[in-house]
Amino acid sequence: MGNCHNLSNQCLINKAEDENIDLVWHRYEKMLPLCGFGEKGICCRICMKGPCRIDPFGNGPQEGICGANADTIVARNLVRMIAAGTAAHSSHGKEIAKTLMQVGKKTSKSYAIKDSEKLRAIAKKMNISIEGKDIYQIAEQVAYESLKDYSRIEEEPCTWLSNSITPPRLEKLEGLGVALNNIESSVADIMSRTHLGTDADPINLLLAGMRCAIGDYTGMQISTNLSDVLFGTPEPVISEANLGVIKKDAVNIAVHGHNPLLSEIIVDVVDEMQQEARAAGATAGINIVGVCCTGNEVLLRRGIPMASNYLSQELTILTGALEAMVVDVQCIMPSLAKIASCYHTKLFTTMPEAKIPGADHFELHDENAVENARKIVKQSIEAYKRRDPNKILIPEEKSQIIAGFSTESITNLLSKIDSEKPLRPLIDNIVNGNIRGVVLFAGCNNVKITQDYNFVHMAKKLLENNILILATGCGAGAFAKNSLMNSEATNKYAGESLKAVLTMLGKEAGLDAPLPPIFHMGSCVDNSRAVDLAVNLANELNIDLYQLPVVASAPEVMSEKAIAIGTWAAGLGMPVHIGLMPPVGGSPLVAEVLTSGLKDIVDGYFIVEKDPLEAASKIIHVIEEKRAALNVTSTLEEEK
Amino acid sequence: MGNCHNLSNQCLINKAEDENIDLVWHRYEKMLPLCGFGEKGICCRICMKGPCRIDPFGNGPQEGICGANADTIVARNLVRMIAAGTAAHSSHGKEIAKTLMQVGKKTSKSYAIKDSEKLRAIAKKMNISIEGKDIYQIAEQVAYESLKDYSRIEEEPCTWLSNSITPPRLEKLEGLGVALNNIESSVADIMSRTHLGTDADPINLLLAGMRCAIGDYTGMQISTNLSDVLFGTPEPVISEANLGVIKKDAVNIAVHGHNPLLSEIIVDVVDEMQQEARAAGATAGINIVGVCCTGNEVLLRRGIPMASNYLSQELTILTGALEAMVVDVQCIMPSLAKIASCYHTKLFTTMPEAKIPGADHFELHDENAVENARKIVKQSIEAYKRRDPNKILIPEEKSQIIAGFSTESITNLLSKIDSEKPLRPLIDNIVNGNIRGVVLFAGCNNVKITQDYNFVHMAKKLLENNILILATGCGAGAFAKNSLMNSEATNKYAGESLKAVLTMLGKEAGLDAPLPPIFHMGSCVDNSRAVDLAVNLANELNIDLYQLPVVASAPEVMSEKAIAIGTWAAGLGMPVHIGLMPPVGGSPLVAEVLTSGLKDIVDGYFIVEKDPLEAASKIIHVIEEKRAALNVTSTLEEEK
Repeated sequence: MGNCHNLSNQCLINKAEDENIDLVWHRYEKMLPLCGFGEKGICCRICMKGPCRIDPFGNGPQEGICGANADTIVARNLVRMIAAGTAAHSSHGKEIAKTLMQVGKKTSKSYAIKDSEKLRAIAKKMNISIEGKDIYQIAEQVAYESLKDYSRIEEEPCTWLSNSITPPRLEKLEGLGVALNNIESSVADIMSRTHLGTDADPINLLLAGMRCAIGDYTGMQISTNLSDVLFGTPEPVISEANLGVIKKDAVNIAVHGHNPLLSEIIVDVVDEMQQEARAAGATAGINIVGVCCTGNEVLLRRGIPMASNYLSQELTILTGALEAMVVDVQCIMPSLAKIASCYHTKLFTTMPEAKIPGADHFELHDENAVENARKIVKQSIEAYKRRDPNKILIPEEKSQIIAGFSTESITNLLSKIDSEKPLRPLIDNIVNGNIRGVVLFAGCNNVKITQDYNFVHMAKKLLENNILILATGCGAGAFAKNSLMNSEATNKYAGESLKAVLTMLGKEAGLDAPLPPIFHMGSCVDNSRAVDLAVNLANELNIDLYQLPVVASAPEVMSEKAIAIGTWAAGLGMPVHIGLMPPVGGSPLVAEVLTSGLKDIVDGYFIVEKDPLEAASKIIHVIEEKRAALNVTSTLEEEK
Repeated sequence: MGNCHNLSNQCLINKAEDENIDLVWHRYEKMLPLCGFGEKGICCRICMKGPCRIDPFGNGPQEGICGANADTIVARNLVRMIAAGTAAHSSHGKEIAKTLMQVGKKTSKSYAIKDSEKLRAIAKKMNISIEGKDIYQIAEQVAYESLKDYSRIEEEPCTWLSNSITPPRLEKLEGLGVALNNIESSVADIMSRTHLGTDADPINLLLAGMRCAIGDYTGMQISTNLSDVLFGTPEPVISEANLGVIKKDAVNIAVHGHNPLLSEIIVDVVDEMQQEARAAGATAGINIVGVCCTGNEVLLRRGIPMASNYLSQELTILTGALEAMVVDVQCIMPSLAKIASCYHTKLFTTMPEAKIPGADHFELHDENAVENARKIVKQSIEAYKRRDPNKILIPEEKSQIIAGFSTESITNLLSKIDSEKPLRPLIDNIVNGNIRGVVLFAGCNNVKITQDYNFVHMAKKLLENNILILATGCGAGAFAKNSLMNSEATNKYAGESLKAVLTMLGKEAGLDAPLPPIFHMGSCVDNSRAVDLAVNLANELNIDLYQLPVVASAPEVMSEKAIAIGTWAAGLGMPVHIGLMPPVGGSPLVAEVLTSGLKDIVDGYFIVEKDPLEAASKIIHVIEEKRAALNVTSTLEEEK
């Protein structure tokens, strides 16, 4: 075998079929038809009297055995999804905060403060006095105050919530009782109130779901900000994306999952082991590639190329050239173990809370992180020797990307134009209509949609309409792989006025070309970066978030985390497009609340549209509505 | 209509059918056949790629779309049930702790300390110095330290865990990493690790489930103990149980749910409103009756009669003589609203986290608890005037019961025999075999089993075999309603040696008759009382819990809380009988771990047996095995 010139996914899918290996797409086909009760959210497994299901056609049962109707069942299932999403994102943030605490206490053997400037800025934002304190003392206190957002007994809102949203938004959330005081309490509250025979009121349940989702947001702020302190705040970086980043003559190690605690260290230790890899015959040395959001983390901070987002993660192994897949938490297909066993590929699990039968478990702890990272790289080099050359098939496709758009790096760039009021150039261009609005693409891949298709087709239409795009998570992965995150893409797809702005900014950035039309802001926990940018814009204009021509979109929404993100985005006031109906179809009431009623309460709401061009049209319409409502020109004139 | 001489449930079920009202049994019949995937635990709705299901016959998919197999899916579903159960019980405990905190701060308008002796004992147990502190200061610190079990950042185990189990058990749980530091973190951890693509290892998942369940136990200790401080520690009390406690000529108000915060106040305000009720025509005044565990709470502390346990809760309304059902949290059928609307009955919800469409919501807050309680009673009196005499059908059945067996009241009673070593008489009688062992009956009703049938038939066989029974929750309700909690039951059902012991104890208690053969220890959160008793016995004998001839049983297990209770009971070392297979049948591995493998790890394990007589035989066998292993006679001799 050799290189693969077809569409990279398809050629590896064919290879899997030749080798009798089932991939996610095969398993999906075999699962069809999917259970309609579950898809509509009207299956209840909350106690052992059932399971119960509501007949969506009205012929069979309209109530569960306890008497819960479709509205109650749908709402309970939905908010449990939010609780799981919140718990997942937030536990990531908590791990980071605990690590920063150890660094602050000088008991960490593996980590250090990389961005002390950001640490000081955070302390200021958290009203922590830094007077006379060294960075360790500041780190300890920042970590402690952050951990209080997981453990506060008192009723005041979480620090990372109240310090990161607009004042009117905080007031609104407090008025609704959804400005939570404690992230883990908000998760436990959902699990408690959805217990058999507790909350049966769908609206009350959805409000609690919103509070929990706001906790998801809060945990995300902690994840992003404290990760930046430990590992550095992203700066624009050039790299590549797609399966073609896997090198034939290298020891290829994929880092996959979400939490950068181990992947950062692996990247650190690789240099010292390059010689060993070459000695084993890998002339290109060791090549770290990213998958999913751990991939995004090391891409933004270290320029590590991105091999795959969620849905095609298995294909990295199918190339036959991956020596190891090192995983941490979330979105890791358990199938990887079986597929790796068909190859020479080692699968390493590294977190105590995420083991996979069949994987080798090297548990990450502060005191052994470097040692374990070395062991993993060493075993990967060993694995290289067991490669079967006949099984190698590496697709050629890869795209150049410019990533690393943290709020800080965007602001720094803009400050070259207006050092006094760095956001002004962006605001001016939004107000004058050169940029009609901003769409944040987030969320997952879903096997129900051709991978990346909706992302790509929506983006092209939005760009053509002079809408700037921010992207995180697997959305960012989709754009990275499909050549939408480089200067060429701006020339090719951006409308004239957007192109002019990006070209001007590219020049200021010292590039000889425009900025990419889609800013890669990081992993899915880094949606907080996009909020920070929007909040800064809103505060500068003295308006609330919902007034900005900003829309969020998850065209291939899939995970419980994505449900949580979408919910808080709506809670912060954003219209949120999703490309698939979440499991709420069985309750017209819940569906109506999410797509319409919510707007009266929190300004944000959901737009469900599967067709990408139709979805783009709807978003453009919303953006123009927002522009009209804002009457941006007069605002600008007043501001002058 | 008039009185009903048939089996009380059946006559009211017939009445419902005449009135075209669906009850839980009808809804169950309509739901058949139940979804076999759900019942076996092999349905996964954790992300939006599916839902997925595993074919239990091996013909269809053996993996979900992500690659998760039956073991992973079953384990994830099971531990999410544990998380919900833990969250439910623990939020109850947290509310109580927050109330005690307000009392301690002297900011409470509705609550006070009723048992300051217990408060001091708790402070001592928690290593809180009481020197020079008044009871308010002690209360505040006890509340604060209890709340820390929900919010601890540091790694040491929860206070209410480490202070309430045997030292070897604590050591074992710590060794397994399941001695949790924070209840809400343990819930969030389950939700996080069960998120798509995180923990795929069934054993790792089950261990995390055990940690969370130990959190359930911890929250229960807090609920029970702090409730005793606020509302009094139960002392033996004589009352009645079954639907016959509803009085034809009274304003009947049922209190239902789990948390005694409002029901206690309702009982308080009734006296002052009796005259008003009589003036409205209710010659028997106001009659408060209990349903479910709120019923157990006010039964044990206030002698309020018990109308129903879980499954027959709807029948209280069907009597046509219930003016109001006041509910708080958990196990409240949403159907109550619809059924109440067919009658003059008012349904009042009272907790912010538990609303029911169609109910009147009077939200309980400390500052308005008394005022709301009065409003509720007033509206109940109004409702009495709207009664339809033609719809009244009150079954005659009711049983006399002796309840109120707190650990303290049992110890006090025993201390009349041996004031130095009060547990000695109990130990002596276990050792000499007059009492062969102890079974704790707990858990729910399940519509899949004829209500109370298994409880009653198991109990009769166990009593005949000289096994003493402790009971809580709906298990206690079953025995109370079926005349198994009075002196007559001892004479009728207890084996000779058990009868002799209970007769002797009855004499010491100043009764002219034996103690009942089943001790009512309270609501389902009061399983902690049974543990306290067992731990005291174990500590006195210097052994661990698992060595005692003690078994737990939930013959009609139904709720997620029951799953959590069963899991911690096994974790504390007890064999746990359950009368229905939990949704784990789809994973032989998980089923095997729960029923066998667990024994090697934590000594406790599950025994699944639906047939009550067979179940009783198995329990007797286990008890005799424990007796043999303990070699109690020689232990006694050594102790002498």
